[in-house]
Amino acid sequence: MPGMHAGAHASVRKKVRDEEERRELMNRLKRIEGQVRGLQRMLEENAYCPEILTQASAVNSALNSFCRVLLTAHLRTCVSEDIRAGREDTVDELMAVLQKLMK
Amino acid sequence: MPGMHAGAHASVRKKVRDEEERRELMNRLKRIEGQVRGLQRMLEENAYCPEILTQASAVNSALNSFCRVLLTAHLRTCVSEDIRAGREDTVDELMAVLQKLMK
Amino acid sequence: MPGMHAGAHASVRKKVRDEEERRELMNRLKRIEGQVRGLQRMLEENAYCPEILTQASAVNSALNSFCRVLLTAHLRTCVSEDIRAGREDTVDELMAVLQKLMK
Amino acid sequence: MPGMHAGAHASVRKKVRDEEERRELMNRLKRIEGQVRGLQRMLEENAYCPEILTQASAVNSALNSFCRVLLTAHLRTCVSEDIRAGREDTVDELMAVLQKLMK
Repeated sequence: MPGMHAGAHASVRKKVRDEEERRELMNRLKRIEGQVRGLQRMLEENAYCPEILTQASAVNSALNSFCRVLLTAHLRTCVSEDIRAGREDTVDELMAVLQKLMK
Repeated sequence: MPGMHAGAHASVRKKVRDEEERRELMNRLKRIEGQVRGLQRMLEENAYCPEILTQASAVNSALNSFCRVLLTAHLRTCVSEDIRAGREDTVDELMAVLQKLMK
Repeated sequence: MPGMHAGAHASVRKKVRDEEERRELMNRLKRIEGQVRGLQRMLEENAYCPEILTQASAVNSALNSFCRVLLTAHLRTCVSEDIRAGREDTVDELMAVLQKLMK
Repeated sequence: MPGMHAGAHASVRKKVRDEEERRELMNRLKRIEGQVRGLQRMLEENAYCPEILTQASAVNSALNSFCRVLLTAHLRTCVSEDIRAGREDTVDELMAVLQKLMK
């Protein structure tokens, strides 16, 4: 499947990522999942609030890093391809997503 | 009052929450864990980047809501008790945590 | 005026700050005002977008630092006094403000 | 196309915006400058901390809106042109800027 490219516009747009990139992104999500279970354990063990909040903030950072890696790949591939092919609505779509991720 | 040491203080500070509060917080964390696994599924299914990013931003919001509920409880209980008992370093500790959570 | 304390609850609540604290906060706001005028100059001089955005992000950081300094003082004075006096709605008020400042 | 150098590139990159866009951006900055002076007045008049913090958060929002408008224009013009011309380092530059603006 690596290298295979789904039709640029299908009814639901798909994105075939190369194996290395997918693995990195999946590893990040697995670590984040582990961190969330860590928060549950802290709660079960009656941890002090500031400690839980500090760890929650670390989960947030990990999630933001995941988004940055994904966004960089997206800009370099899908967005660049679309712009070169003259598909301008990709920029509007990108701004809509950035709006959710920006401060 | 400074220097007085409440019973709840052990060498590692714990926080016994009431059952209803703990359940609400745990339910939130369980939902967040499910959302993170949802992100993993989207990745496996080659979902388009903006869709993954939009869902990641929703996980972020859920995590922030969790922090807000926890922080409110913390302010109302631990911080209020400490201030009434004259333990001022609780404010410094609170600011250190807020710094991580603030924009 | 330093040390004079306005009635804890007036029809509009005031906060008399000591001179040194007020000066620090005012200096920060003056610097931020200068930075905003700097952004205007960059725009007039047709600066490249990433450079303007980088500087705008620096203004944002300065604003956040101002908020942190103000919030720390607020927690140490007004909030602590209110909690010691048994005025609990101060915590709700604080959470409403924190909600705007938090990520 | 890589290596081709557009006329708009000087040793310091400039961006000539059209008059309407520049006016909108300048108006936003003028309003933000006014809001910062408003914060100074509140401080002089001993306004209550939560009120100053609420207004500071509004200044933050105005600054973020300014960034969004500028970023959208940047994506539609400079970034799109560069990508079409094969200048790939524009994406790295964009990610560096986004990193500062993202949560």
